[in-house]
Amino acid sequence: MREVAVAGTGMIRFGKYPDSGYSELAAPAVLEAIRDAGVDATSLDVCYCGHSYGGMLVGQRILRDLGLTGPPIVNVENACSSGSSALREAWVAVAAGVHDVALVIGVDKLTQFRKGPIPLDRDDWEVARGIVMPGVYAMRARRYMHEHGTTAADLAEVSVKARRHGALNDDAQLREPLSVAEVLASRPVAEPLTLFQCCPTGDGAAAVVLCAADRAGVRSPVRILASVLESGRYEPGFRDMTTAEITVRSARAAYEAAGIGPADLDVAEIHDAFTIAELMYYEALGLCERGGAAELLRSGATSLGGSTVVNPSGGLLAKGHPIGATGVAQVVEVVRQLQGRANGRQVEGARVGLTHATGGGISGLDHGACSIHVFGR
Amino acid sequence: MREVAVAGTGMIRFGKYPDSGYSELAAPAVLEAIRDAGVDATSLDVCYCGHSYGGMLVGQRILRDLGLTGPPIVNVENACSSGSSALREAWVAVAAGVHDVALVIGVDKLTQFRKGPIPLDRDDWEVARGIVMPGVYAMRARRYMHEHGTTAADLAEVSVKARRHGALNDDAQLREPLSVAEVLASRPVAEPLTLFQCCPTGDGAAAVVLCAADRAGVRSPVRILASVLESGRYEPGFRDMTTAEITVRSARAAYEAAGIGPADLDVAEIHDAFTIAELMYYEALGLCERGGAAELLRSGATSLGGSTVVNPSGGLLAKGHPIGATGVAQVVEVVRQLQGRANGRQVEGARVGLTHATGGGISGLDHGACSIHVFGR
Repeated sequence: MREVAVAGTGMIRFGKYPDSGYSELAAPAVLEAIRDAGVDATSLDVCYCGHSYGGMLVGQRILRDLGLTGPPIVNVENACSSGSSALREAWVAVAAGVHDVALVIGVDKLTQFRKGPIPLDRDDWEVARGIVMPGVYAMRARRYMHEHGTTAADLAEVSVKARRHGALNDDAQLREPLSVAEVLASRPVAEPLTLFQCCPTGDGAAAVVLCAADRAGVRSPVRILASVLESGRYEPGFRDMTTAEITVRSARAAYEAAGIGPADLDVAEIHDAFTIAELMYYEALGLCERGGAAELLRSGATSLGGSTVVNPSGGLLAKGHPIGATGVAQVVEVVRQLQGRANGRQVEGARVGLTHATGGGISGLDHGACSIHVFGR
Repeated sequence: MREVAVAGTGMIRFGKYPDSGYSELAAPAVLEAIRDAGVDATSLDVCYCGHSYGGMLVGQRILRDLGLTGPPIVNVENACSSGSSALREAWVAVAAGVHDVALVIGVDKLTQFRKGPIPLDRDDWEVARGIVMPGVYAMRARRYMHEHGTTAADLAEVSVKARRHGALNDDAQLREPLSVAEVLASRPVAEPLTLFQCCPTGDGAAAVVLCAADRAGVRSPVRILASVLESGRYEPGFRDMTTAEITVRSARAAYEAAGIGPADLDVAEIHDAFTIAELMYYEALGLCERGGAAELLRSGATSLGGSTVVNPSGGLLAKGHPIGATGVAQVVEVVRQLQGRANGRQVEGARVGLTHATGGGISGLDHGACSIHVFGR
C-alpha cells in the first residue's frame, strides 16, 4: 500500500439551484479540482461519484457533459456518507496501485423534491412510521439534556458558532450570523430542536483529485493518514442514545491508523446535521469527556482561534448539507486549511485535520455508514 | 497485490416477486454464498452491494435484516454493471489487503415498476427522446444485418440457444425451449427484434464471497485472474454502431491481465440483453472475426458441448436480467462451472471462464460501464 495525497480540491457554493441538473452542479467543482491539482485531465484514470438522489449513472453523465471521458466510473451510495465512501473507495484504489489519479465527486440536488416529499423506500419502515432524522436527534437531545444538565441555550450555541464561521465562507449556503435568542426563537421542528438547529436542505457539489503522495509535479499535496469506513451494528435491545457508537468505533480505528490522538487535531469538519449532533460527536471523537461537550464549546476551544477548530467552514448547519456532496466538501475544507488557503477563516498553523461524515438512519439510532479521514501536511 | 478467489456463491431463481422487498430477495442468496464459502459470518469484513433501483442503503438493510452486522457496507450503482462493479470494488479491497473476506451482493426488483414506467432521470435526455435500449439494439441489428447478410433467423438462433441452456438451469426465469419460428412469431418490440429476442424484466439476487486465494479452510476456491472496469468514451461524431467498443477495450485489458487469449476460454457468461448483443460481443471478445458471429453460433462452438460455451446459464435472455443482480449471477454461474457443480449443464473440464456485464446507455451507443472478470482453477 502506498501513501495517497489529495492533490486538488473544488466545490460550488451550496444553495438552491432548482434549474440545474447534476452535471451542471458538478461541473465547476470538477474543473476546479483538476485545475487545482495541476494534473492533465487525461491522466485521471478512475472516477468515483458519491450521491444519493441522482438516479442512474450520475458520474458518467457528469464526465460526458464535461468531455472528460476515458476513466472507469463507479457511483457510490451511502446516504449522508456517500461522498466520503466514494473517497474511501478512491483511496483504496490508489493506495493499492490499481489506479494512479482518482477523481472523487460528491453531488446531490435536494430541491428536486420541493414539489413533494422525498419518495419513501418500500423497505424503510422506520421513516414510514415517522422515525425521521429530526425526530431521532430531538430524542437524543432530550436525553442528553436530562443526563448532563445541558440547556437549550447550550444547544443553540452550536448554531451560533456554525453561522459565525459560515459568515466567513463564500461557499456556505447560510452566511448570516445568528444570536442564541434568534436560534431559539426560530420555529420548532422537533422539540427541543428549532429550525436553525437543523441543517438546511439544498444542492451542491464538491470534488477532489487523489494521487500517490510521491507523484511528481503536484504543488501542495495533503497526505491521507487514515481512511476508515464503518457501518452500524443494528443490534436489538437497549442502547444509549446519547453515544454515537459508530463514530466512537470509526474514530478509534482512524486514530490508530494515523498514529495520532484527538489532541493532535488542529481542525475537524464533523457531521453537525443538528446542534446536538456536534456535541455528541465531540465526545465520540474524544475531544472531551462524556458530558463535557457544552463546556468545551463554551471554552472556545472548537471555535476559530481555539485548539481544535471544529467546522470552520460553517459545517452542515451553515455551509449546508446536499447529502452526497457533504463528505467531499468536508475534505475540500480541511485540505485547504492544511494548505493555508482558507481565506478569512484560516486555522493558523494547521497541520493535522479530520473529516467525519456519518448518517443514513437504520433502526432509528444506528447509521448506514460512518467515514473518518485524517489528513496531514 | 495478492491473489483473490471466489470462495462461495449463492443466488435465487430470477423471476417476478412483486411481494418481496430487497432484503427478502437477497437473503437466501447471501446465506447460500456464506454457507458455501464455509466462512464464519463474523469473518466478513466488508460488503459491497450492487443495485440500481433499491433506493438508499440497500446493502445495510439486507445485512440488518439478516442480523449480519459489523462489516462496513458500500452500495454501488453502475446500471447493468452495478453487480460486476461491486465485485470489482471488492476485488480491489481484498487484493490490496485492506479487507480479508468480502461479501458481494447484486440485487434488483423491476416488478416495482409494474404500475407505471420507470421514472425518468431529469438529465437523461436520450431516454426522454425515445433512445431506449431496445431501440438502440434494433438499430445495431439492422446495421449488422446490412453489413454481414445476417438474417432474422440467425438472430433468433441466439434466443433458441439461450432457452435451450436455460431449460437446464433451475435458477432461470424462462425455462421453456423455443424454436426459431416461435422467436420470430413473438410480438415485435423494435424491428427486427421480437419479444423473445429481448431479455425479460424481473427480480433477483445473487451473492459471492471473496477472500485471499491462499486463505486456509476454503474448500473449492476459484481464482480471479483479471478484474477490469471501463466506462464509455462518449465521443461525438461518427461511430460504427456494430462494434462494441467498450467491450473490445475491456476484453483487451482483461486478457492481458489474466495472461490468456479468447481461445483459452472454456466458458463465458456474456451480456446478451438482446440477441444482436450476443453476436456483437462474440466479435468484441475475440471469439470470432468481424462478421463471423452468426457462423460461430451455427457451428455449435458456443453451445453446450462446444469449445467456448457462452451463457450455459441461459444468459440474460433466459436466466433473466434483474439489473444489479446480473453481474454477480454471471460470476455464480462461471464459478460453479469451474468447480464442476453446474448440474445438468456442466461444461466438461472447464478451467478458464469469463464474465462480461456491460450497459447503461449514455449518448445512445456508449455504455456507462463494462466489467470483465476472468476466472481460473
